[in-house]
Amino acid sequence: MKILVLNCGSSSIKFQLIETDEQKRRQGNESRLAKGSVQKIGSAEAQIDFQAQGQKKISHTQPIYEHTTGIENILQRLVEPEKGVIKDVEEIEAVGHRVVHGGEYFSRSTIINREVEKGIRDCIELAPLHNPPNLWGYQATREVLPSVPQVAVFDTAFHQTMTPSAYIYGLPYCLYERYKIRRYGFHGTSHRYVLLRLAKILARPVKELDVITCHLGNGCSIASIKGGQSVDTSMGFTPLEGLVMGTRCGDIDPALVPFILEREDLRLEEVNNMLNKHSGLIGISGLSNDMRTLEDASKEGDQKAALAIDIFAYRVQKYIGAYLAGMNGADAIVFTAGIGENSPMVRERVCKNMDALGVEFDSRENARLQGKEGCISRESSPVKVFVIPTDEELLIARDTYQCVTEKSG
Amino acid sequence: MKILVLNCGSSSIKFQLIETDEQKRRQGNESRLAKGSVQKIGSAEAQIDFQAQGQKKISHTQPIYEHTTGIENILQRLVEPEKGVIKDVEEIEAVGHRVVHGGEYFSRSTIINREVEKGIRDCIELAPLHNPPNLWGYQATREVLPSVPQVAVFDTAFHQTMTPSAYIYGLPYCLYERYKIRRYGFHGTSHRYVLLRLAKILARPVKELDVITCHLGNGCSIASIKGGQSVDTSMGFTPLEGLVMGTRCGDIDPALVPFILEREDLRLEEVNNMLNKHSGLIGISGLSNDMRTLEDASKEGDQKAALAIDIFAYRVQKYIGAYLAGMNGADAIVFTAGIGENSPMVRERVCKNMDALGVEFDSRENARLQGKEGCISRESSPVKVFVIPTDEELLIARDTYQCVTEKSG
Repeated sequence: MKILVLNCGSSSIKFQLIETDEQKRRQGNESRLAKGSVQKIGSAEAQIDFQAQGQKKISHTQPIYEHTTGIENILQRLVEPEKGVIKDVEEIEAVGHRVVHGGEYFSRSTIINREVEKGIRDCIELAPLHNPPNLWGYQATREVLPSVPQVAVFDTAFHQTMTPSAYIYGLPYCLYERYKIRRYGFHGTSHRYVLLRLAKILARPVKELDVITCHLGNGCSIASIKGGQSVDTSMGFTPLEGLVMGTRCGDIDPALVPFILEREDLRLEEVNNMLNKHSGLIGISGLSNDMRTLEDASKEGDQKAALAIDIFAYRVQKYIGAYLAGMNGADAIVFTAGIGENSPMVRERVCKNMDALGVEFDSRENARLQGKEGCISRESSPVKVFVIPTDEELLIARDTYQCVTEKSG
Repeated sequence: MKILVLNCGSSSIKFQLIETDEQKRRQGNESRLAKGSVQKIGSAEAQIDFQAQGQKKISHTQPIYEHTTGIENILQRLVEPEKGVIKDVEEIEAVGHRVVHGGEYFSRSTIINREVEKGIRDCIELAPLHNPPNLWGYQATREVLPSVPQVAVFDTAFHQTMTPSAYIYGLPYCLYERYKIRRYGFHGTSHRYVLLRLAKILARPVKELDVITCHLGNGCSIASIKGGQSVDTSMGFTPLEGLVMGTRCGDIDPALVPFILEREDLRLEEVNNMLNKHSGLIGISGLSNDMRTLEDASKEGDQKAALAIDIFAYRVQKYIGAYLAGMNGADAIVFTAGIGENSPMVRERVCKNMDALGVEFDSRENARLQGKEGCISRESSPVKVFVIPTDEELLIARDTYQCVTEKSG
């Protein structure tokens, strides 16, 4: 089944056309027919990138003022006689959308109908920047491909298995009742993808696995997964909590927010902006939110860059320890996403001195592994350590396949 | 040497008269000659409580409008012919003050002189509620006992050994330079006291010990102590960060502060008040900030009380795991303060399932131990677990003795 996977932001659409079904998944021959994006939607110079499997990326600009035109453009690229990858848009049997926030309504992926659409809308106050464009993407697709089933795959859904002792904050309980203030967690599709992949590598049932998955990209989160279910995660009510990230502060003393608001005489959106866009690695280093840049600078003696890396790695280490305590050990720790897949240095900093907690790290294997799947702990290690490149789009495609075949079956 | 230990708040003075010196400390026969407090200073009905060693507590009320009169009253009680414990105030050879915030100026206890006084004053913006009355206490004592040396013992000093990777937040670095925003940590005197006591119990040099000390009272903090030095702690810029406490929220998503400010239309002092006074155990349970009350209610089926306990214990467990990871194991975990000393249930919840991290908990021994010192792990446990009642006043007295004898020596 050919499935169009869409990730719609306020001024962008990322897409992939993925072919998958039960058999292909089992045989490991799912394929990514094409991928690309539309950027700067809402301008006369929107940029369309398109790359068919095994081909070079093609880019061009044209005026695109809203998401419907953006999606029409993507479909045109897909069916172009020479450079396209399908003959007719009718070959697309389903569309899967990344939806950021499913609140407490959605604990799994689901076909979007009127009720689901309302549920996503009801979560807008929890994700005011993300859920609206996710909905625009759905509505635009409905206009362009009216008869194709669409599926929502939520960033939050995987973490809905947390119990209240993990998701309730130490705040007046009425805030949970009044505004649904609680830990939700994000990156669920990525944490779930690497979990499933790990089960395959270990040839063990997912339900038996206790795993700590570290999604370290520009946004970073860690999940504590017990018996295949998320029991805790570092991001919270918003993606600001937890680890130090590229531009986000992660955990701080909450009393600092009123302190900074007062001292710097900021408005609420200004402090939000500071905590989300000017903090984290770039805030500490004053240099960059990119770990590669910081590694290079640190090697050349930049003290702030070195400090940013130290803080980053120490926080990851602390979260891993916290979840090892919470689960009383684990079968494995998994590193994924940009930094997790590509920085042996960060992984080494995090894992090399954790043998008292059952992690016997293989520094040599780790140093060799960049952007590829592999095991970086010793054979004797009670807690295995793996690098597994994430693939959220593939899991969205699989979920979409699952939902539309369940529906019709 | 007889030392008056004072802990001065905005409307209260707590005091103890302690006799200690090098020899007494070594021989374990230091003594607490008297203790008590003056409450509701600034009113016509201030209450004075006084208890001589081995005697009943005596209470009475009288008008006391400022700290100088409060301290004069304490001295009168101490020298009263029948119920007092000394013949003359001149027997008091030194006064030790608890001072909350020493900022980055003070990494150990010190005799208060003009420069130190200025340093404490400079830290007022870091502890606007606490440092001013600490200074009033010093100034009042100087008026009443002008020739007696006074010593400041700081809550923050013990944690000044943290490195920047533990104390710098993931915020723009300029905030550290501009306002000294960083982790300071508190309860230092308590963490240090139980550490020293542990070294004595284990008959090992403090410098060799890696310990996690859990001060669980109405305020709660955990310290990670490596080679006898604090390397991390859960309280931060203020005592709000970290564990869930009696009335404080501890760690939350920092994005919640602007969210709540906006939704509830609060002023900054109102949100501070909510996070510090109406959150934590009482916020979650809606019932009490007292663990004993919550334990009883939970046994009778109160779900919110049970949830508050679950959250409390799980957070302690996570911090212990985090610090075990950071130090690559530890020699011991120590529980102290109200909850730590008196709640076998909380200790059991925290420690019983941590054998994968080297904690072999002795549930039977734990259940027997309430308000007393003892070991609650099995003999084979790689990480020992102890209960050690704290005694901050005694350590203040010892530090004071040390400072004044060094000075004169």
